[in-house]
Amino acid sequence: MTPGTHPSIPKPTFEGDFQLDEVVSLESGEVLCRPTQHYAMYGQLNEARDNAVLVCHALSGSALVAEWWPQLFAPGGLLDLKRDCVIGINIFGSCYGSTGPGSIDPQTGNKYGPTFPLINVRDIVRAQAKLIDSLGIRKLKLAIGASIGGMQVLEWAILFPECVARAISIGVAPLGAMGLGLNHLQRQAIQLDPKWKGGHYAPEDAPRGGLALARALGVISYKSVELFEQRFNRKPNRNGENPWISTAAGQNGRFDVAGFLDYQGEKFNARFDPNSYISITRTMDIFDPVRAHTSPYAAYERIQAHLTLVGISTDWLFPPEDIRSLAAIIGAAGVRCDYREMASLHGHDAFLAEPEQLVRLLTPVFE
Amino acid sequence: MTPGTHPSIPKPTFEGDFQLDEVVSLESGEVLCRPTQHYAMYGQLNEARDNAVLVCHALSGSALVAEWWPQLFAPGGLLDLKRDCVIGINIFGSCYGSTGPGSIDPQTGNKYGPTFPLINVRDIVRAQAKLIDSLGIRKLKLAIGASIGGMQVLEWAILFPECVARAISIGVAPLGAMGLGLNHLQRQAIQLDPKWKGGHYAPEDAPRGGLALARALGVISYKSVELFEQRFNRKPNRNGENPWISTAAGQNGRFDVAGFLDYQGEKFNARFDPNSYISITRTMDIFDPVRAHTSPYAAYERIQAHLTLVGISTDWLFPPEDIRSLAAIIGAAGVRCDYREMASLHGHDAFLAEPEQLVRLLTPVFE
Repeated sequence: MTPGTHPSIPKPTFEGDFQLDEVVSLESGEVLCRPTQHYAMYGQLNEARDNAVLVCHALSGSALVAEWWPQLFAPGGLLDLKRDCVIGINIFGSCYGSTGPGSIDPQTGNKYGPTFPLINVRDIVRAQAKLIDSLGIRKLKLAIGASIGGMQVLEWAILFPECVARAISIGVAPLGAMGLGLNHLQRQAIQLDPKWKGGHYAPEDAPRGGLALARALGVISYKSVELFEQRFNRKPNRNGENPWISTAAGQNGRFDVAGFLDYQGEKFNARFDPNSYISITRTMDIFDPVRAHTSPYAAYERIQAHLTLVGISTDWLFPPEDIRSLAAIIGAAGVRCDYREMASLHGHDAFLAEPEQLVRLLTPVFE
Repeated sequence: MTPGTHPSIPKPTFEGDFQLDEVVSLESGEVLCRPTQHYAMYGQLNEARDNAVLVCHALSGSALVAEWWPQLFAPGGLLDLKRDCVIGINIFGSCYGSTGPGSIDPQTGNKYGPTFPLINVRDIVRAQAKLIDSLGIRKLKLAIGASIGGMQVLEWAILFPECVARAISIGVAPLGAMGLGLNHLQRQAIQLDPKWKGGHYAPEDAPRGGLALARALGVISYKSVELFEQRFNRKPNRNGENPWISTAAGQNGRFDVAGFLDYQGEKFNARFDPNSYISITRTMDIFDPVRAHTSPYAAYERIQAHLTLVGISTDWLFPPEDIRSLAAIIGAAGVRCDYREMASLHGHDAFLAEPEQLVRLLTPVFE
């Protein structure tokens, strides 16, 4: 690529840990003992500390926002590091630096593994608010995120209404039955692997077959029938395998889509932990911003931020009509809430697959 | 149920095996040595032997048509045993009586297991034609089937054009990329199970966890987002489990949809063989009635039957628009081919879940 045609990915101005020096009570009734949040900052906080943008990551993301969403930093993009200070915080349960199943439980001295407590999006957001507060930030200029990142944005706007000026939540509503079912089967795939061992596997001998299958199933739910049809159709695998003949021991040739799914599973395996996958999909399952409020109205009327919800036309994990309805319900509670829709074949994944379109869609909203 | 309000399920007038006394060459280049077809007949062949209706079964079906499609035999239904002789033939690869992975390979004296050859729908139909011929039937009054049963119907109409008067193929076109991907992941689930053992498992120690997961994933693909939403929504599992709290060793409570999927997997396990599941999903994958013909036109112009294709409005495994297009392509080859659509929330499964609607849709066509 010619230098200059592609914006270089910005480096964080800070990357480090924020440790909560306390026992954190969780929504599930359990506790996290002195948990750590790994976070990164890009650009500088201004003197008034009113230029902070919180970017909340999705299942497989991390605090290093610019590594997975670089297009938002491109010239003419949503974020401008001359103006904004962008903050990314790794969520509890993840394997990218914050406390998760791979961490040591200070109460026992042992790794949490499968005993890592159930984390609610609300738990994540409360801990993030402490971190943000410790930086002297009273109000976020913007909180933005997609998928489980968008869940965090909604909880921020409800739990800390005075602390969020603008909020953009992409591709998210409480998960419907189909999504709950798919997440359940993904966890079962991991637990079916002979290396699962009840979750007490060694990192170098993890249930990688199960995680690969879970991820492949995830990829199916993140993409659309239309995209798969356009991209793969009934083509045989590009490496020359032939699905129409038998080979030894039932290893028949694959179609191209199968080769793609296997590849996605393998690629993910190199960078993710099975217990974290289980933990975060559970967090996604139980997200419900209305729960524990007396009514949807009571939850949503708290919001002071100008909120934008974005649906994706071919998303069947979080159908756009669910997000449109959610925007209407929130609007009916007196909140300034608008709905925008990405027209994309990429399904749920569009926020990562077509970020330029997302930027075009959001820039006028943001300005 | 009050006697009289529900039609009793008819019993077959004949159930037995038809053995091909020869080595059968398969489309894959392999052979099946003296394979058996298990079949059932309901009602009687008339003297002219022109009242035969072939009902082709789907993945988990059997020759015993009335057990899985009883509504077709109900008064006012499609089939009338006073008039028709209904024939069901178990397909190769199945575990319900015909030669499949659980059979002994006469060439080796050992069970086929995972070495069972790849079966093409065309192989199945050629063998069925020999059985039908042996009964002295020159022309089927009707061939009808759904899913892989509908694939058989289409191949019948193309391969043996003079032998089929009426053909009804339901919920089927060549599988698209999403369906191919889902079938692939289902096979991987079985093969991930520690009891898989390369397919050489003992029947009493089969990879049941893998088959249950495969079936649950299948069920997801057979049903629709809308149905799941209506039926399960975000309800917790009906047995009282609580998804919002942690329990020991990561065994969190399930949502209702997860309980349903697990139950479907277990129920299927009691009656199906993992190697058969792998074999039949492969057969489904490679179905392509045009392949090995010089063009789609050349394949379809062979058809002499009056053909009806049925799509299901919410089927995302075999989208109705694919089936509608197929009907148009076949029609353009000069075939009398009409398209009808079931309006159902049940997705692909509608042919089993709402058979009464199917009967209403088809009765005028048939008469």
